[in-house]
Amino acid sequence: MKIDLNADLGEGFGPWRMGEDEALMRLISSANVACGFHAGDPLIMHNTVRQAKAGGIDLGAHVGFPDLMGFGRRQMNIELKELATYVIYQLGALAGMAAVNGHRMTHMSFHGALGNRVAADAAMAEPLVAAVAAVAAFDPTLIISSSSSRAIENAAEKHGLRVATTFLADRAYDDDCLLVPRKVAGSVIKEPAAVLQRVRQLLEEGTVTSLNGKRLAVPAHSILLHGDTPGAVELARTIRREIEQAGGCITPISQLLAAS
Amino acid sequence: MKIDLNADLGEGFGPWRMGEDEALMRLISSANVACGFHAGDPLIMHNTVRQAKAGGIDLGAHVGFPDLMGFGRRQMNIELKELATYVIYQLGALAGMAAVNGHRMTHMSFHGALGNRVAADAAMAEPLVAAVAAVAAFDPTLIISSSSSRAIENAAEKHGLRVATTFLADRAYDDDCLLVPRKVAGSVIKEPAAVLQRVRQLLEEGTVTSLNGKRLAVPAHSILLHGDTPGAVELARTIRREIEQAGGCITPISQLLAAS
Amino acid sequence: MKIDLNADLGEGFGPWRMGEDEALMRLISSANVACGFHAGDPLIMHNTVRQAKAGGIDLGAHVGFPDLMGFGRRQMNIELKELATYVIYQLGALAGMAAVNGHRMTHMSFHGALGNRVAADAAMAEPLVAAVAAVAAFDPTLIISSSSSRAIENAAEKHGLRVATTFLADRAYDDDCLLVPRKVAGSVIKEPAAVLQRVRQLLEEGTVTSLNGKRLAVPAHSILLHGDTPGAVELARTIRREIEQAGGCITPISQLLAAS
Amino acid sequence: MKIDLNADLGEGFGPWRMGEDEALMRLISSANVACGFHAGDPLIMHNTVRQAKAGGIDLGAHVGFPDLMGFGRRQMNIELKELATYVIYQLGALAGMAAVNGHRMTHMSFHGALGNRVAADAAMAEPLVAAVAAVAAFDPTLIISSSSSRAIENAAEKHGLRVATTFLADRAYDDDCLLVPRKVAGSVIKEPAAVLQRVRQLLEEGTVTSLNGKRLAVPAHSILLHGDTPGAVELARTIRREIEQAGGCITPISQLLAAS
Repeated sequence: MKIDLNADLGEGFGPWRMGEDEALMRLISSANVACGFHAGDPLIMHNTVRQAKAGGIDLGAHVGFPDLMGFGRRQMNIELKELATYVIYQLGALAGMAAVNGHRMTHMSFHGALGNRVAADAAMAEPLVAAVAAVAAFDPTLIISSSSSRAIENAAEKHGLRVATTFLADRAYDDDCLLVPRKVAGSVIKEPAAVLQRVRQLLEEGTVTSLNGKRLAVPAHSILLHGDTPGAVELARTIRREIEQAGGCITPISQLLAAS
Repeated sequence: MKIDLNADLGEGFGPWRMGEDEALMRLISSANVACGFHAGDPLIMHNTVRQAKAGGIDLGAHVGFPDLMGFGRRQMNIELKELATYVIYQLGALAGMAAVNGHRMTHMSFHGALGNRVAADAAMAEPLVAAVAAVAAFDPTLIISSSSSRAIENAAEKHGLRVATTFLADRAYDDDCLLVPRKVAGSVIKEPAAVLQRVRQLLEEGTVTSLNGKRLAVPAHSILLHGDTPGAVELARTIRREIEQAGGCITPISQLLAAS
Repeated sequence: MKIDLNADLGEGFGPWRMGEDEALMRLISSANVACGFHAGDPLIMHNTVRQAKAGGIDLGAHVGFPDLMGFGRRQMNIELKELATYVIYQLGALAGMAAVNGHRMTHMSFHGALGNRVAADAAMAEPLVAAVAAVAAFDPTLIISSSSSRAIENAAEKHGLRVATTFLADRAYDDDCLLVPRKVAGSVIKEPAAVLQRVRQLLEEGTVTSLNGKRLAVPAHSILLHGDTPGAVELARTIRREIEQAGGCITPISQLLAAS
Repeated sequence: MKIDLNADLGEGFGPWRMGEDEALMRLISSANVACGFHAGDPLIMHNTVRQAKAGGIDLGAHVGFPDLMGFGRRQMNIELKELATYVIYQLGALAGMAAVNGHRMTHMSFHGALGNRVAADAAMAEPLVAAVAAVAAFDPTLIISSSSSRAIENAAEKHGLRVATTFLADRAYDDDCLLVPRKVAGSVIKEPAAVLQRVRQLLEEGTVTSLNGKRLAVPAHSILLHGDTPGAVELARTIRREIEQAGGCITPISQLLAAS
């Protein structure tokens, strides 16, 4: 079984850093890099791209709302036509950064409040996925990486884009297999043993148990690791070991979908 | 004689606009588009790119300091290695915006205080032109557009980049053929007749008279038109007519250098 | 009859300007000044405060969402406790600017999407009005200026704050006497004659006709004039004349509520 | 001997934090709080003010350049008249935040590149100290806190402002008793033993040894502690103990200058 391990990296800004990028970089096969709207700045992007290149790790654009102070975790009601141009801008910036460093942008994902909304709302997924498809016309390897979402999958199919589904082991799912918003109690699973148990269940059964207790089939090309909580890197290491011991092969997202 | 007419466009931000982009767009053959650092936002960039595409006008990235409040006109002491990543970020963003709109980024120029410094300082021109060259490796049509500058020309030659020299008819030149900074008295020529006279002198003699009264040979592939002062569009129209009556052929910057 | 005329001023940022502040300044008795979040910067605030001081005009803080690119017109879901600190920050910045220029901050109002939401939602009005009241404890002349809103009036009464009700002659009202959001068709009344007619109806009957055609009693200590559309200043002049011919006395907001 | 211990706090932004504010808060008598330009946001300011109030700690505004990405450590050439309005804006914002939390703004200091320049350049100190004095007219307890600087002391004397001189134990001094800029080798003293030795020399002799080896008399009402390097809190604890063992009495900056 081949599976990708991905993480959100480059989530600092100016003098500030978030998470343990260096430690995570040694554990993952794909990086999602913030593009300057909710986090990230050109220098951080540049350095993260170089590290990804050096590590043979896939490089994705992590696209968010223009809300640095809120880290892209607050809903903003932006006209869809305008929001689509924000997506294009961020993808272009990372694609350029990738090119000059001899790497390429293999995938993209929607961050935070934007991600929650796109995943749940077909009317929003359609124009934003169309924007990604317009970029993919010139970057033909571009894949959308997303937690399981009918809205994104349908829009991607319509626009001829491939989708890699990511499993978030430390986030609760609702009965529609969508992420439970962060502010809901129980939405973030902090107990390492529980997180690890969810990874095991995914690997063995291909299922996740929803917040309501339902066992749902969940596709997963990839597992998302977080690096911004105490003990996160140790947990990531444990998850990686778990996969390898189960006979899994950690594979970058682009090779995975090409193979399928 | 072939000559390009270019203008700085898309210099609004959010709800604000600057200059008369629509009127200028009908007079020029090349547009320099702000990329979100000193001005411009994704929606404005998108709309400006579409208009340039529709008008058959060359599209350039106008790259500036990250200083919206100061419109990129205030010097900032940024580490050159970091500043180079700002250049790459802005070029990538515009290149992406161009690609999805079926256009291409033909050139780039440095804006405001950044432009003044790069033009005058070889130690600054070298790493920033190198950054442009790294982008040009993937956008092979990319040309640097600049007012006359040994620093930029030398760096461009070293990195195998073409330079198009722009003449600023409404800005005073010093004896080194560099632009006199805006805060110096007499640096901005506001009298339309004087501006027109400078264009004539350029077309007839290929020279400009410096602030000190020296007559200097000045190469010019292009003439910059401004649109943000009262009467600017009328003046631009007059300059265009002047060129055409002198038998000049208004030609986009990319066709001009390809031809040379 | 005494009535205040107010306008939103200082809505530029950096190199950009919006509306005809100078012309409006001569027509109004109270100014609402943007505080740097949705528009405005320190220099613009400073200059606007000085002009208000020179003109004997009341000075208010126009408080908005931290969204320069969207001009504070896009909803943002910000934790109320955090949003309250944004209100305090903006009020403090303008109060300081007023003090050093020998003026005082007489009132405040909520801008754009923030204003729409506070006016319509009691759960939001309560903590934000409480924040204003906390500032008013040290600026005892501070009044809230708002379009008619039960939510704000109730919260203000609870916290011992005075409210001045502003009438927006060029905006449609719904049957609850709340402003119809800008994106709804018919929400913005552009025909000068229609705007003037609404002012007349207010002065004569103290009523407004809602978008649905209902005639509603609407209290009004003040009328808001806009300066950012073509013909706006001429319309403002006409409204002012209309009031004066009807025997009205244009009075700054602070004198008006003190008198009542 | 009475001496103040101060630290720069609230230097996070949005989701990011810098330094160990909580640990430092228990060791100092005065806090310098970032005001949103180079770091800090309203929520962080609010929380820091509350903690300072709870701890009986003096509260100062740490005023910087509008450069979040560069953390206010990069020189910017801003017109002095405009820069003065940035100072007023930041002071007003913190003063408001102090007032609503039942605290008061006792002092202010200039951060980073702004601080370096003001301390060294009389032409810059004059208008900016004048701006502080204009605010102090309404906040009469306001003191300027600065590393030793003739430029600031002279301007403060002219404008009737008190200055508290802060000693930076971990920064090298030049022969004019000014801080050596960060990019110069040897400017930041990282060895705890060396830092502690400098504190001892200050307490015993009232002197500092410059980077060139000169022993200079240096006045010091206060010592600055840093919290953003590994081991910094432990070092701060050691310095505090050193002072107390030498019979020093840790005293907030406002009580110190009132007493003198």
